[in-house]
Amino acid sequence: MTPEIAKDEARKQLVANWSSLSRIFLSPEDDASKDILLKYMEQILFGLHDFLRENVGITEEVSLKTLSDQFMETRICEHPEKMLTEVITDLIEEIAPQAVNVASPYFVGHMTSAIPFFMVHLKTITAALNQNLVKLETSKIVSILEKQVLAKLHRLIFKRSKQFYKEHVQNQTTMLGSFIDDGTLANLTALWTARNTVLGPKAGFDGVESEGIDAAYKAYSLDRCVVLVSRLGHYSLRKTGGILGIGNKNIIEIETDQDFRMDINALEKAINDIEQDRRRTRILAIVGIAGTTETGTVDPLRKIGEICNNNGIHFHVDAAWGGPTLTSEKYRGILDGIELADSVTVDGHKQFYMPMSCGMVYFKDPCKLDSIAYHARYVNRYGSADLGRKSLVGSREAASIILDSALKIMGTKGYALLIDHGIETARAFAAEINRRMNFELITDPELNILTYRCCPANLCNGLQSASPHEKRSINKKLDNINTVIQRVQRESGKSFVSRTSIFVEKKYNEEIVTLRAVIMNPMTTVDILKEILDEQEDIYRRFFL
Amino acid sequence: MTPEIAKDEARKQLVANWSSLSRIFLSPEDDASKDILLKYMEQILFGLHDFLRENVGITEEVSLKTLSDQFMETRICEHPEKMLTEVITDLIEEIAPQAVNVASPYFVGHMTSAIPFFMVHLKTITAALNQNLVKLETSKIVSILEKQVLAKLHRLIFKRSKQFYKEHVQNQTTMLGSFIDDGTLANLTALWTARNTVLGPKAGFDGVESEGIDAAYKAYSLDRCVVLVSRLGHYSLRKTGGILGIGNKNIIEIETDQDFRMDINALEKAINDIEQDRRRTRILAIVGIAGTTETGTVDPLRKIGEICNNNGIHFHVDAAWGGPTLTSEKYRGILDGIELADSVTVDGHKQFYMPMSCGMVYFKDPCKLDSIAYHARYVNRYGSADLGRKSLVGSREAASIILDSALKIMGTKGYALLIDHGIETARAFAAEINRRMNFELITDPELNILTYRCCPANLCNGLQSASPHEKRSINKKLDNINTVIQRVQRESGKSFVSRTSIFVEKKYNEEIVTLRAVIMNPMTTVDILKEILDEQEDIYRRFFL
Repeated sequence: MTPEIAKDEARKQLVANWSSLSRIFLSPEDDASKDILLKYMEQILFGLHDFLRENVGITEEVSLKTLSDQFMETRICEHPEKMLTEVITDLIEEIAPQAVNVASPYFVGHMTSAIPFFMVHLKTITAALNQNLVKLETSKIVSILEKQVLAKLHRLIFKRSKQFYKEHVQNQTTMLGSFIDDGTLANLTALWTARNTVLGPKAGFDGVESEGIDAAYKAYSLDRCVVLVSRLGHYSLRKTGGILGIGNKNIIEIETDQDFRMDINALEKAINDIEQDRRRTRILAIVGIAGTTETGTVDPLRKIGEICNNNGIHFHVDAAWGGPTLTSEKYRGILDGIELADSVTVDGHKQFYMPMSCGMVYFKDPCKLDSIAYHARYVNRYGSADLGRKSLVGSREAASIILDSALKIMGTKGYALLIDHGIETARAFAAEINRRMNFELITDPELNILTYRCCPANLCNGLQSASPHEKRSINKKLDNINTVIQRVQRESGKSFVSRTSIFVEKKYNEEIVTLRAVIMNPMTTVDILKEILDEQEDIYRRFFL
Repeated sequence: MTPEIAKDEARKQLVANWSSLSRIFLSPEDDASKDILLKYMEQILFGLHDFLRENVGITEEVSLKTLSDQFMETRICEHPEKMLTEVITDLIEEIAPQAVNVASPYFVGHMTSAIPFFMVHLKTITAALNQNLVKLETSKIVSILEKQVLAKLHRLIFKRSKQFYKEHVQNQTTMLGSFIDDGTLANLTALWTARNTVLGPKAGFDGVESEGIDAAYKAYSLDRCVVLVSRLGHYSLRKTGGILGIGNKNIIEIETDQDFRMDINALEKAINDIEQDRRRTRILAIVGIAGTTETGTVDPLRKIGEICNNNGIHFHVDAAWGGPTLTSEKYRGILDGIELADSVTVDGHKQFYMPMSCGMVYFKDPCKLDSIAYHARYVNRYGSADLGRKSLVGSREAASIILDSALKIMGTKGYALLIDHGIETARAFAAEINRRMNFELITDPELNILTYRCCPANLCNGLQSASPHEKRSINKKLDNINTVIQRVQRESGKSFVSRTSIFVEKKYNEEIVTLRAVIMNPMTTVDILKEILDEQEDIYRRFFL
């Protein structure tokens, strides 16, 4: 039999019957299939970065329309359509090449990068064990390990006493934090607890969780609750306001200073304004950002924390991005004051370099999560050690195994190397941008994110002496130039920076389109970044001169 | 050098420096380590079930206290503490044996079971590609593939026209559903859209999402909003009421009939009662359950759907458990009427046998998710094809790759075999329970879940002729017996059924402790279930006679 005939023969046998089912559960179809699978899996597990370089990434631009046209069938096949080896070959030969090579050192546009190869091993083991952390009966030791790794991160953030951690690390009635799918849901969990604490039960009122927002406002004689956050706050905070029933218009934006950090004067003024009608408006929380999504800047956490502590206001820090900076002796000072927070969001799939996706939220007070506890008859019973009792989500995988293992393999010093590399490479990149005639640095990299734009010398020079009206007109042109540069560079497939708009108050008093670079891949060097700038200049010349 | 000395030497080199870091990102420490890893990963990927049998599972009971004592350290190591091979050896030799072998055919207590071995391959590939589905720029073709698989499942549920699917499968402005971490968050997403639709924008009011619950109630002249669900509804629905600001006490329990399905008369009475003050109370949604967590029963979906459609009420079906029953020609009729739903929750990690965790929510109206849309400057821009625009969560992994591949490998007929096996084995198990003197079947398995209790003949016989007071006293004894049986059996480590309490109206008019079996593992046979009953009888004899 030729291989082709053999394959056809094999496919003919793709009927769903009990014996094929048992095979599907237990092992590959046959030795030939196993050999193919072995080859692929060995490539993925032991040559991940070579594998990604060879197989993944947009080398030729295929339009969304063209791609979409191949994915129009909407019936599920009745009979098995493909053998496992065919499905996996398709994934690697057809899907992967049109996926995005987020591991490329030239991919510096978003908060996703190369991950250490061993992360894939750890994810594989986690999937094989298939524990469900909602309850002890489906996770046992993994629930205990999770409590430990929560305590480790809590200690990195809050640095409470040895005695405190001894008391709480394995305490079944308290919780130091919670693993959750991502930063959005971590922020939601934090503000949910803040809402439930401020509008908690009291004489004649069962609490907002039980009775709802409307009853709570009546019980507390309020017209509204608000959350204060800088204008650079992540959009998930607005979403959280919408979900929790306080209304997303009550997530109030505080102006930023010239360094794109929350303006403390503006914050104090906002608090004072609210205090004027304090009986009618309550501040649920003030959010400080440790690494804004757009500029990577860190709010003045200590000052915000002191204001919160003095006013009895919940202080939440969104450190989804910047949290792991705490592993760096050199740069952890940038997050000074984070220990004053009541709650802190950290993402594992960002600067802990874990695979998608792993959010976490930590609470200074180990009883804070009591305000969102739920119980049922068959799981999460009162007094049980089930972690699902105090969690936004139910079933979830054991991301804690991956983080715990990674911390052992890397140590804080290993992570610090990555953090330091990112910050220092971003600074060198900023210097390079400043050196170039045709670029303008918009936001300095406090951590490892910066924004800039292509601003060709002829337009830039005009900009400084221009009237407000001319300035706007030139900025419009530049907006268009940078939008085109970003799109063309992305489509040509070698490099990727992202695009956003930044309100630049001092210099322009308007929102301008900028390019945004996130330097987290340890393989990204200054030389690579120079190449990216070169290509951008080249695109400018090709399209606009 | 002896192997031990070599290992010590290797560990001495565990310093975090730039060259070790590059190695960590790129490949195993050395060939010896690679060989060990290869051996483990081959076992996991190609002998998953042997691997689990040999390595995972509680064979001797170790107390939580004893386990906890080994997880007290709360400092993160500064220097790398272990080599990758050591970490993975520890996971397999120390952690796995104390985890729960949810893949054992004797583990019939929860909604987690063995998964086909290839699911672990698919999870590995997904982790290696590390796409982030929040936006096209970090997922590209995978976003397109995801839209296709959403359409496939939508079609399985709602069976809308060919033209409908052609229009929407790759439509960038509409969405047929959403992948999300689990069923809890799927239910939350569904009720969030229901809330935002009922309390949507109108003249002089920006909508509840923007202005909050309090303003919405004023704008619509309401005192409260409620959700109706049977008393067997999942606890996540109460949680959802709390989160969304309507108050969890407004998730109103409707009584069940003698078959543990929502009592339609009770539902109609509740609706009438609410209509009496219709101007002041609004029903946000009625939830029908397709496979309750405790009894696996399915509410009369068609009748509930008709009532909802006639009254213009959002009909949500929680089919987290039962959804995949639609693949079975033989049993899909049990879910008759599900196509009347406005939204449907289905879990991938339950009866689609995917690894932890994958929830999904589907909407009949492809514009329904517009009511929860959010945008930002750097992602999810207006008009973009980013899937994160209309999603509860932000960053998330490509679970859709796994489901899509599994559907191709299994076909609906492959899944149907699993579904049919579960239902038929559960029925045979029920017959066996009915045959035994010392057991009482509490809830018949409509799908593949049943509850029962050990009810020794001497007590059972007394029960029928007893006075109400005596009945209660006997049931108390039985509660204790069954609690002990469940605990001792779990601790002895071979088999696992779970425990819950069921309100048995007709027979006892009280809540009694029951044992609960969920039959989803295709390796679970009636003989195994008989062994489980034998062990339970044996425990009864040892502890109570």
